[in-house]
Amino acid sequence: MATTDFDIIIIGGGPGGYVAAIRAAQLKLSVCVVESTHLGGICLNWGCIPTKALLRSAEINHLLHNLGEFGFSADNIRFDLDKVVKRSRAISKQLASGVGFLLKKNKVPVFDGRGKLAGTDGDKRRVEVTKDGKAVATLTGKHVILATGARARVLPGLEPDGKLIWSYREAMVPAAMPKRLLVIGSGAIGIEFASFYRNMGAEVTVAEVVDRILPVEDEEIATFARTQFEKQGIRILTGAKIGTPQKLADSVSITIEAKGKSETLEFDRIISAVGIVGNVEDIGLEGTKVEVEKTHVKIDHFCRTGEPGVYAIGDLAGAPWLAHKASHEGVLCVEKIAGMDVHGIDWTNIPGCTYCRPQVASVGWTEAKAKAEGREIRVGRFPFIGNGKAITMGEPDGMVKTVFDAKTGGLLGAHMVGAEVTELIQGYVIARTLESTEQELMHTVFPHPTVSETMHEAVLDAWGQAIHF
Amino acid sequence: MATTDFDIIIIGGGPGGYVAAIRAAQLKLSVCVVESTHLGGICLNWGCIPTKALLRSAEINHLLHNLGEFGFSADNIRFDLDKVVKRSRAISKQLASGVGFLLKKNKVPVFDGRGKLAGTDGDKRRVEVTKDGKAVATLTGKHVILATGARARVLPGLEPDGKLIWSYREAMVPAAMPKRLLVIGSGAIGIEFASFYRNMGAEVTVAEVVDRILPVEDEEIATFARTQFEKQGIRILTGAKIGTPQKLADSVSITIEAKGKSETLEFDRIISAVGIVGNVEDIGLEGTKVEVEKTHVKIDHFCRTGEPGVYAIGDLAGAPWLAHKASHEGVLCVEKIAGMDVHGIDWTNIPGCTYCRPQVASVGWTEAKAKAEGREIRVGRFPFIGNGKAITMGEPDGMVKTVFDAKTGGLLGAHMVGAEVTELIQGYVIARTLESTEQELMHTVFPHPTVSETMHEAVLDAWGQAIHF
Repeated sequence: MATTDFDIIIIGGGPGGYVAAIRAAQLKLSVCVVESTHLGGICLNWGCIPTKALLRSAEINHLLHNLGEFGFSADNIRFDLDKVVKRSRAISKQLASGVGFLLKKNKVPVFDGRGKLAGTDGDKRRVEVTKDGKAVATLTGKHVILATGARARVLPGLEPDGKLIWSYREAMVPAAMPKRLLVIGSGAIGIEFASFYRNMGAEVTVAEVVDRILPVEDEEIATFARTQFEKQGIRILTGAKIGTPQKLADSVSITIEAKGKSETLEFDRIISAVGIVGNVEDIGLEGTKVEVEKTHVKIDHFCRTGEPGVYAIGDLAGAPWLAHKASHEGVLCVEKIAGMDVHGIDWTNIPGCTYCRPQVASVGWTEAKAKAEGREIRVGRFPFIGNGKAITMGEPDGMVKTVFDAKTGGLLGAHMVGAEVTELIQGYVIARTLESTEQELMHTVFPHPTVSETMHEAVLDAWGQAIHF
Repeated sequence: MATTDFDIIIIGGGPGGYVAAIRAAQLKLSVCVVESTHLGGICLNWGCIPTKALLRSAEINHLLHNLGEFGFSADNIRFDLDKVVKRSRAISKQLASGVGFLLKKNKVPVFDGRGKLAGTDGDKRRVEVTKDGKAVATLTGKHVILATGARARVLPGLEPDGKLIWSYREAMVPAAMPKRLLVIGSGAIGIEFASFYRNMGAEVTVAEVVDRILPVEDEEIATFARTQFEKQGIRILTGAKIGTPQKLADSVSITIEAKGKSETLEFDRIISAVGIVGNVEDIGLEGTKVEVEKTHVKIDHFCRTGEPGVYAIGDLAGAPWLAHKASHEGVLCVEKIAGMDVHGIDWTNIPGCTYCRPQVASVGWTEAKAKAEGREIRVGRFPFIGNGKAITMGEPDGMVKTVFDAKTGGLLGAHMVGAEVTELIQGYVIARTLESTEQELMHTVFPHPTVSETMHEAVLDAWGQAIHF
């Protein structure tokens, strides 16, 4: 009979849960994962990974329609949407099965079913596993890590119907390209889909209730990105009041009011991307001291909930809803359980990335946040047009912005928009984790010619020392 | 009449000289640049920048021949070599004229001619400027920074003739694609040209006298890169004895001996890329205390030569022959002259990049160097095939290697091969500049999904904690 007693039971096998499990196994703790749907979670199956595969195709489509700039030409350029989607799905499947392999290699048992806290058994916690409504196992563990993730928020009247109104899931596997697409919501998910469909040839409109796009990003960077999106032909309506869609045979009519003007527009499809709610239901929180705030579980800097022995990580534990935040919390939580001397998590050191064209990436405080915190700041900026590598790549549209504490020289935040910035931001994350000041960043030798030199110049500029502008 | 007396006279307007001049102007020093040929130096005119433009085209050609993988197709894919070359030249011209603009904006006068040390005038140094052999100005300055750069080494029998045997210059402006190309030398320059021509369709052979390619890189990384190049169809002959080429009407016959086997081969063109020699001649070093070692000027950690008031930076001052090393030395040298409290340069913190496909980038000590220094080390490795983003990009061929001091945890070196690693290496450079240990790098949250996660995993792996492998 299989073991049912563990040091740690992890409910949820996404990037929080499976990474926590592997780390626990490395630390010689007995650990299992309970997963109801798919290892790898939303991230690998219906999120980060498959969208990146799609966005790579969109990037290629854009390039193919600008070949002349680089001295190339081709006739009859076309794509097979089915192949584009199948590639994305195949990569998801490959990586998700990789997670299964990693867990097996680390000897972590996986229970197929829904896990739920079910009281205690002496000094241990009990977790019940059900599959299709039937109990399939009862597990006991000293510690339980909740990692059940989140799901798309659904607004009344905008319920995904699998045909005309799409959630991120349907948007990832289109059977045909919509000619006219409305994306509701301009956070990372909405903007990535807008970018994908626009670059693949659709007419795209983005509607956002607040008065700007990419609401969590620095406003100046978001404005820069908006200008680029609009140049590409994406129509953006901010401060928008969105009516209830009227479904037609193969399209949707919807009234949107923006800037005091009301328009009734027809779209083939609508993507609803209006946020995330944590999966706090039906995991046995009732009667425990686990606190739920809005739709997430409250945790401290070591991912502990109010209930002894119960932890929460990842999307379930609130913003930022990012896979790497989940993984990091998972490792940290397990190391703390193992008695290691770990530092509590600093959520301001978690970078955010949006893989639109141009890409957006950031870490730390925005300029507005730094001002709201009452800091005296120095701000540096550097445009991609001042960078040789960006020009050789044919990617002159971008900028980097740094926000420093004027008194201490500490790097409060860094914000980037442009080609490949999602790969570049890590340098600033390392700098923030090492509590770098402007001095060390100035003395760092960034290789030439690279786009990363803009990171150096944006630091120099904050102190009036930029060279190339 | 124009001023001829300065705080600093800079001889050479390349990435060392012009950057030093701008920094001096920022510090309110009076400064001028003497440049004989073209502002921006080899880097902007005949080096880093135009080659990156060409390599971007090569990358696109590769992609165009692998469109099916991404769900795309096109007919009659072709390039116009003239347009590819013209794009490269236009970008060079744009950026070099940008340097002129920056110097003007910073009110730095530029003297058109060759500068040469010409004794002293009281406590000042004299510099004579000649143009076409005629004296055009005599300048005086408290300090003189020599930044005259370097040129390609020429081997007897392999003198570039502008037709059959090319230096980097001719290789950058081909009138037609050679069908069969021999590249002699497998350093960064040789390998970049081999990669460009191969990806544009030529049959390419690389011959290298030592027994491996990319001699300054970590051997394991170089071997990985070699395997990739060979898969792409580049023939690589190491430990090669290269005979004297016999010139034919429109081709060259040459005997190469490698692995005890001698072959006489015919090529359309040969690129000679066998190293660099400093431009130490005819700059007035005779009778000064400036020491020349091999072909470079000896300097200390503040770029001071043996002669008071005379400094040398960049290629003239020796390896690594990299533009960012020149710029960094220029800034540091000027700040020291200005009396600022600066740290001496640590050349081991200067990254190196090769923009072949896959790219190669590194900073700090190789594994072999760390061992030779007697360090007890821990080595981490992570392959791109374990990275989701690399797979979504269709770039699974790469690896990252870290070398740590086992006792202190200090990062001794980091070595990368794969897509976009030239943009990634800056994170490790920041870490080294901040004297990071493995702990801080482990605690850094690298964004998901990015290729930069491989940098995290390669750190974790050195300490037995990699998650995804």
